Amino acid sequence: MKSAIFVKAGQVAIKDIEKPRIEADDDVIIRVVRSCVCGSDLWAYRGLSPKEEGSHNSGHEIIGIVEETGSAINTVIPGDFVIAPFTHGCGHCAACLAGFEGGCQSHDRASNFSSGYQAEYVRYTHADWSLIKIPGKPSDYSQGMLASFLSLADVMPTGYHAARVANVTKGDTVAVVGDGAVGLCAVIAAKMRGAKRIIVMSRHKDRQDLALEFGATDIVAERGEEGIKKVLELTNGAGVDAALECVGTELSTETAIAIARPGAVVGRVGVPHGDAINFNQYFMNNIIFAGGPASVTTYVKGGLLDAVLKGEINPGKVFTKSYDLDAISAAYEDMDERKTIKSMIKMED
Amino acid sequence: MKSAIFVKAGQVAIKDIEKPRIEADDDVIIRVVRSCVCGSDLWAYRGLSPKEEGSHNSGHEIIGIVEETGSAINTVIPGDFVIAPFTHGCGHCAACLAGFEGGCQSHDRASNFSSGYQAEYVRYTHADWSLIKIPGKPSDYSQGMLASFLSLADVMPTGYHAARVANVTKGDTVAVVGDGAVGLCAVIAAKMRGAKRIIVMSRHKDRQDLALEFGATDIVAERGEEGIKKVLELTNGAGVDAALECVGTELSTETAIAIARPGAVVGRVGVPHGDAINFNQYFMNNIIFAGGPASVTTYVKGGLLDAVLKGEINPGKVFTKSYDLDAISAAYEDMDERKTIKSMIKMED
Repeated sequence: MKSAIFVKAGQVAIKDIEKPRIEADDDVIIRVVRSCVCGSDLWAYRGLSPKEEGSHNSGHEIIGIVEETGSAINTVIPGDFVIAPFTHGCGHCAACLAGFEGGCQSHDRASNFSSGYQAEYVRYTHADWSLIKIPGKPSDYSQGMLASFLSLADVMPTGYHAARVANVTKGDTVAVVGDGAVGLCAVIAAKMRGAKRIIVMSRHKDRQDLALEFGATDIVAERGEEGIKKVLELTNGAGVDAALECVGTELSTETAIAIARPGAVVGRVGVPHGDAINFNQYFMNNIIFAGGPASVTTYVKGGLLDAVLKGEINPGKVFTKSYDLDAISAAYEDMDERKTIKSMIKMED
Repeated sequence: MKSAIFVKAGQVAIKDIEKPRIEADDDVIIRVVRSCVCGSDLWAYRGLSPKEEGSHNSGHEIIGIVEETGSAINTVIPGDFVIAPFTHGCGHCAACLAGFEGGCQSHDRASNFSSGYQAEYVRYTHADWSLIKIPGKPSDYSQGMLASFLSLADVMPTGYHAARVANVTKGDTVAVVGDGAVGLCAVIAAKMRGAKRIIVMSRHKDRQDLALEFGATDIVAERGEEGIKKVLELTNGAGVDAALECVGTELSTETAIAIARPGAVVGRVGVPHGDAINFNQYFMNNIIFAGGPASVTTYVKGGLLDAVLKGEINPGKVFTKSYDLDAISAAYEDMDERKTIKSMIKMED
């Protein structure tokens, strides 16, 4: 079968590799209908994170059709249409019960996260609790709805995670740092949770427009010190009730901290890059620092899938271009160059 | 009037200094009835934090009688019996409204915290919203009740802060790292908020006994790696729902993080000492880091005073020895040597 491979920094390619098989009782083989490129995939593509040359792609977001199930799988059968979360929780350990399956205590870390999913088929590990069934079949839905289902494998729940760990509640003033697909989904999440004011830090017109469509009330185009000053001005010097950090760089993290009022939460979902933040210096201001890998199954089963099915939210709009698997290079390149917010890989109609 | 002064590391003394006077419209002069020594005062006493030699004492916890009020004071009149919180919020900025007056945005940091309160009289700045009136007069109450009122100036609300920022809720399994007065008050707070299980890390028999009286369910006497192992064993390997860090050292902070399950909050109220914690390494486990100076007025008006008046909680028991102001050296020395959990300074009967 065809799969994208990571050739080296700046280069991905398609290779014929062996089709995956059931290896464990709780595996499921999925035929991929839609896959995509994640902002986090770009770290290695840009040479900023180490990744072995010639290794499988780091794609981890798909929707697809169940092809085969291991003997311990009770929740799906071949033919089911599913969302495959990038987290693979067990559903019954203390971490999963608390709604933090990204830290599932039943599985080792490597098998608890997806990888290699820019491919025709994937082996989905620890599938029983994690996989989410979508009613019907792909042809029952519009292209836009399929895109929104795909966003539920990572980017929408990740944006939601930022808002949840930051305790965004009715009436809050929230700032979203970062206008990538996750930041834009964090806008949707902040609105779902009742935020009164949603300030988005974004320098790009297409993303600003989508942020406003998703519910943003203010756009701040400035960055660094200027951006901080602007957000503080917008909040009468007080700072925001919740700062959603959706990038992961030092600059974005320091910005999120600086615009948070005393006692506010910095909800961070951008995988941290760069030097450590010296958190002790924020003690006097009671800044709360929360975040990590999202709780995909928890949020999707808990309401996000319903909200998509009812048309209440349209997170699939973050996919502004789509590609065949054979065009994987362009999918990475365009996203890297910000020609698309997020690249979708369309495996079948 | 008599006041304790900080002579140098390891030495405090009594000096005659000028009695304070009203300097600002929102000042109140208080005649001190009870004062005390704080665990945080010991950092300078032990030579571990810089403090100017010959400067005023760092005491910041009193109850007393209002002697004189500035022209902007509406909430108290001379003769009122009051608790003087160590935080001096305005009550109407975004930080105070959110219940984080330790970060009050109306006052500069220096004037937002008490200091120099091991003395016969104090000038209490920004008093109008912050000061808390106690019904009646000191002679209406038992010695134990007076001790509990005194604990409401800092140590009990600080313990409560750890539990609040850690979102301790009904049924939680909580660990308290540190068996000082704040840690013991954190046990009371965790119990008030409905924790089902309260594990206290303590090596001292007197403190273990008081922790159990306050509601602890398990004691772990081991420290460091051994202590972590023990707490994990007690929680079937899962870790605790909330870890209340009540010391402020690197060891105690690393311990609190290590015993927290994924998605748990480390509520820290020990003023951080030692090197920075590299928080980025806890991203994958979704560990939440919260805390800072407590919200004294918010918590005391919000229920802690009522709980003391009704005899539901007895935080004053952390004062295991009391001293005249003239015996201030012994008050510091005994607390430093753990001969008392917390030293009370009794200014009048």
